Amino acid sequence: MTLEIGVIGTGMIGQDHIRRLTHVLSGARVAAVTDVDLDRARAAAADGVTVHETGAALIADPAVDAVVVTSWGPTHEEYVLACIAAGKQVFCEKPLATTREACDRVLDAEVALGRRLVSVGFMRRYDAQYRAMKEVVTSGAIGAPLIMHAAHRNPSVPGFYTGEMMINDSTVHDIDVARWLFDDEVAAVTVVFGRTSSKAGPGFRDPMLVLLEMASGVLVDVEASAHAGFGYDIRGEVVGEDGTVELSEAAGPVVKRAGRFGGRIPADWRERFVGAFDGELQAWVDAVAAGGTTGPSAWDGYAATVVCETGLAALRTGAREAVSLRARPDLYKEQPEP
Amino acid sequence: MTLEIGVIGTGMIGQDHIRRLTHVLSGARVAAVTDVDLDRARAAAADGVTVHETGAALIADPAVDAVVVTSWGPTHEEYVLACIAAGKQVFCEKPLATTREACDRVLDAEVALGRRLVSVGFMRRYDAQYRAMKEVVTSGAIGAPLIMHAAHRNPSVPGFYTGEMMINDSTVHDIDVARWLFDDEVAAVTVVFGRTSSKAGPGFRDPMLVLLEMASGVLVDVEASAHAGFGYDIRGEVVGEDGTVELSEAAGPVVKRAGRFGGRIPADWRERFVGAFDGELQAWVDAVAAGGTTGPSAWDGYAATVVCETGLAALRTGAREAVSLRARPDLYKEQPEP
Amino acid sequence: MTLEIGVIGTGMIGQDHIRRLTHVLSGARVAAVTDVDLDRARAAAADGVTVHETGAALIADPAVDAVVVTSWGPTHEEYVLACIAAGKQVFCEKPLATTREACDRVLDAEVALGRRLVSVGFMRRYDAQYRAMKEVVTSGAIGAPLIMHAAHRNPSVPGFYTGEMMINDSTVHDIDVARWLFDDEVAAVTVVFGRTSSKAGPGFRDPMLVLLEMASGVLVDVEASAHAGFGYDIRGEVVGEDGTVELSEAAGPVVKRAGRFGGRIPADWRERFVGAFDGELQAWVDAVAAGGTTGPSAWDGYAATVVCETGLAALRTGAREAVSLRARPDLYKEQPEP
Amino acid sequence: MTLEIGVIGTGMIGQDHIRRLTHVLSGARVAAVTDVDLDRARAAAADGVTVHETGAALIADPAVDAVVVTSWGPTHEEYVLACIAAGKQVFCEKPLATTREACDRVLDAEVALGRRLVSVGFMRRYDAQYRAMKEVVTSGAIGAPLIMHAAHRNPSVPGFYTGEMMINDSTVHDIDVARWLFDDEVAAVTVVFGRTSSKAGPGFRDPMLVLLEMASGVLVDVEASAHAGFGYDIRGEVVGEDGTVELSEAAGPVVKRAGRFGGRIPADWRERFVGAFDGELQAWVDAVAAGGTTGPSAWDGYAATVVCETGLAALRTGAREAVSLRARPDLYKEQPEP
Repeated sequence: MTLEIGVIGTGMIGQDHIRRLTHVLSGARVAAVTDVDLDRARAAAADGVTVHETGAALIADPAVDAVVVTSWGPTHEEYVLACIAAGKQVFCEKPLATTREACDRVLDAEVALGRRLVSVGFMRRYDAQYRAMKEVVTSGAIGAPLIMHAAHRNPSVPGFYTGEMMINDSTVHDIDVARWLFDDEVAAVTVVFGRTSSKAGPGFRDPMLVLLEMASGVLVDVEASAHAGFGYDIRGEVVGEDGTVELSEAAGPVVKRAGRFGGRIPADWRERFVGAFDGELQAWVDAVAAGGTTGPSAWDGYAATVVCETGLAALRTGAREAVSLRARPDLYKEQPEP
Repeated sequence: MTLEIGVIGTGMIGQDHIRRLTHVLSGARVAAVTDVDLDRARAAAADGVTVHETGAALIADPAVDAVVVTSWGPTHEEYVLACIAAGKQVFCEKPLATTREACDRVLDAEVALGRRLVSVGFMRRYDAQYRAMKEVVTSGAIGAPLIMHAAHRNPSVPGFYTGEMMINDSTVHDIDVARWLFDDEVAAVTVVFGRTSSKAGPGFRDPMLVLLEMASGVLVDVEASAHAGFGYDIRGEVVGEDGTVELSEAAGPVVKRAGRFGGRIPADWRERFVGAFDGELQAWVDAVAAGGTTGPSAWDGYAATVVCETGLAALRTGAREAVSLRARPDLYKEQPEP
Repeated sequence: MTLEIGVIGTGMIGQDHIRRLTHVLSGARVAAVTDVDLDRARAAAADGVTVHETGAALIADPAVDAVVVTSWGPTHEEYVLACIAAGKQVFCEKPLATTREACDRVLDAEVALGRRLVSVGFMRRYDAQYRAMKEVVTSGAIGAPLIMHAAHRNPSVPGFYTGEMMINDSTVHDIDVARWLFDDEVAAVTVVFGRTSSKAGPGFRDPMLVLLEMASGVLVDVEASAHAGFGYDIRGEVVGEDGTVELSEAAGPVVKRAGRFGGRIPADWRERFVGAFDGELQAWVDAVAAGGTTGPSAWDGYAATVVCETGLAALRTGAREAVSLRARPDLYKEQPEP
Repeated sequence: MTLEIGVIGTGMIGQDHIRRLTHVLSGARVAAVTDVDLDRARAAAADGVTVHETGAALIADPAVDAVVVTSWGPTHEEYVLACIAAGKQVFCEKPLATTREACDRVLDAEVALGRRLVSVGFMRRYDAQYRAMKEVVTSGAIGAPLIMHAAHRNPSVPGFYTGEMMINDSTVHDIDVARWLFDDEVAAVTVVFGRTSSKAGPGFRDPMLVLLEMASGVLVDVEASAHAGFGYDIRGEVVGEDGTVELSEAAGPVVKRAGRFGGRIPADWRERFVGAFDGELQAWVDAVAAGGTTGPSAWDGYAATVVCETGLAALRTGAREAVSLRARPDLYKEQPEP
């Protein structure tokens, strides 16, 4: 049984998921695509793939078993709600929606339906190192977690990038990792600035240190750097009462030459997380084929958006800002394992 | 277009490839299976998969596009020859055949046909670390290769294992790696013994140091250990005129506790090479779907078998034994890249 | 020419310096000792070493060329001032003095004298790894420094230890490192708490994150952990505009056994910094023998004490507290290299 | 009590030991020097140091408590014998003597005297990593040792260097390490060649693989490379029945820049073994001051010379050459620990 997937949004990440569904993963194929730019949609459609004029039409297509949403963030709410209305499983790239209110509406719709149809693309949960780190944390080998140190270093960002985007588009992954690793919610956010890199444009204070206080008290500090220059460098160390667990450098071969030994740093997020992207979508395809879903839920998407909103407030005020979440609906109290 | 695969041999590795083709890879499905033990074949066959009584029948089945041979080594020759006769692409687990003469017959048949149908399962060529190592070697970054140090450490082996099997079943991978890394043939083999582990059974001198002299003069020393105990540990370092390149430890997280820092060693070859097995078979499926083949050729299978035979002689004599290869047929002079 | 040293204070660290001067270093010997507990002083005195009843008497002893102060912190001011009055070089273990006012008096006395007689024992400046890190930072290889991440993890602390002592006795080293690495002063301190370890006694919020803002804007975050349990773990990473430089794990051999590879973590500060203690005191002995001094100055001791006082205020208020330093006297504007 | 040392031979290594005794170590000073080139001896003599015209005169000088021999290898025998005759402790740089027969005479003289006066400068026994490796081996943590892999890589060698010198001057250290680590003798030597580096001059086959068979059966393979180019790289891994222990890369800081992470490789043996040289000579000074000696004995010097002679034979013949040692005199059966 091959799962027939419709893809809404055929930009860079949409094209990458189409390639993945077509040439890498097992059990699925792309049946239909659409995009705000129909020419781009047509270009992304292989032979036999239907090109729809709208996301609504694609979702309504009876040949489409499940939907992947990779369109522009502000359109996510509309498509996810339409999938819920149609009773179709949907994998939505982050963010679930761009405002707290939009996420609320998705939660309300899914809760009203009474079963989970929404999965959100926080792919780090499928990265082998983060998964092994979570195993160590939950095994008790390092004792109760106390502090986590993280760094999110982009080699560079486009000229239009801002500090707000560093929170919404980059740090959001560290926020999700913290919630997932500790099975906990973020209670407060503070943003502290270091010396600003001369590579950052006017008004862009880069890097920054984002402090997350979890409900349990665990403190997470995230260095968010937009212009690291030397590579895409994702760091994480959890400090527990009895020990620590830390992501290691990528396991390429070590070269010795000209007085130095060393290895390669990933060039970008594709190189670093290719396995996580593959694993995430394969897990979702398998779960959907089996009649359910898996991975980060709409609640995870909601919480990430609310924490990011709070982070933006902290960015503006320079003060500690408390995170206020609605009560967690029963639907999300026991969720399928990622 | 889904490639319809017939699998001959449904033992451990056969079952693993069936799982891989069914649940992991893209573009193929298992259409038919057979095994010397038909009950085992039936158990391995999902709904809709034909169970054939013989390999010959499976190969002849018009519903079978291509064949995977994972049966007992001594039967490989027969099935591979039958695939060549039938003009079907065949992926044969190593060894290609168990004797030099049997390999000769496969080469003769393929050369007579005039095009490549045979791919041999030396999966290390698809391991990310080995591939990066080869990139470094061929980039010239470490200069001309001079020496390679390797270690092949199995945590343990079954009671019936022998020194001969350490060469034929374990060191054969290091032999293939050396041929592939340096694009060269093995010219001579010597086996030297260290102190014998008390864990080795009577008559089993374990570990041993296998010295391979390549035609170019590059010296490769392979520590082959059958009872390493602590894990499955595959090491490799190429020493060039200007530098070295070395496989690193596996990139799991680093844990600090109880006075030590450190990480996990793979438990077995499955854990260490899971990505290589997936990549190898996906590459073959893609190449076959595109009308050709890829990966180690029948020549590679032939050369490996001849070097292993020479290694067995060296094991018996304690002396340096020269490797004698037939002339390389034109068919194998330019081969598709792994 | 052997330098004749008088040691004031023969507790643990005093005894260690006596051993070092007697059995490890070149060019010096212990000529006289004293201690508030004269029996302890006598026990620490080898044959031929004079035991003085007071520090004042020891300093006045014409057989004493130079003085090492390793007594209880609150007594440092008195002895250092007496050394200045006597015109003798003095190596004072940190702190220079326990209050800002006391440090002021030392600065005033030394400035009035017009030449440097005081060296303060911040030994990390002599650790091979920190020195190599400083070389990288000042070489420009990683560009202008932006952020530093540090961790100071003690395996355990005595029962009387408090959060205040974590700042005054542990974090003070990280404060000195930051000042020295970046050739800069600390401008503000904030203390943030993570979840409190269950190993910490009542009222001891451990671990904490101490944020130092340097005058240049460089942000330094120091995880100070008193009950790390697994070992003595000192971490540091400087993030610059073009790269990073990070202390590596200690270079002991790597052991593979029982499914893990890994190495030893130092048990305590003695193991971690033995080379730094030796190097620090040898450098001081050599400089004194040559007629001068070297190492951290009274200004460095003053600044460290003021930053620690500010840190204690931050600990109490939970707010960002600005550091206020007096103008730097000319005497300390160009100091001998550590 | 300061030990008064006479130094015979004021070339590069002699000058380095003079500096060490004068400025680094505790408890000794250089009282007298001599050299075949008296001008060089005078240049190396600080004020108050006697310059003798001959080694014999220096040894006879009653102001000289103990002797350091750092002259040209062929002269070692004469000076060591004279020290034994004079009843003075002597620290002799390797080799103890350049021929088996010369070493025999030293052994005979010391045995006739009935107590140990000779210590030989195999400084690796004082390197922190090798010592920790030996602790692991003798602790039983990795089980009985079976194989050792080593590499001795010089960045370059002078133009007059030969393959024979690679054995006598470089590999001799690995020979001593093997004897010391395993508390065992070398039973046979074989030399195998890899592809010759284009950097090696005519007739110099570099690198080579030196295989040592210990009496216990432990096999040691040493890659000896004279033109490694990239740095001074000393590698070692002991493979035991239950695990392995391996020297780690030097513990400098790790730098990330320009897409790579990595650290420094020592430039030469001084950088790599500075601590070992210091520790070796300090241990000897301390032992001599206490009325005895310590470190590698004349027997260790004898055995190393005999194994090197055997290695030269193996180099010529290309065959396995058995090592023949005289019976070990009782004097050397229990030796002071290094």
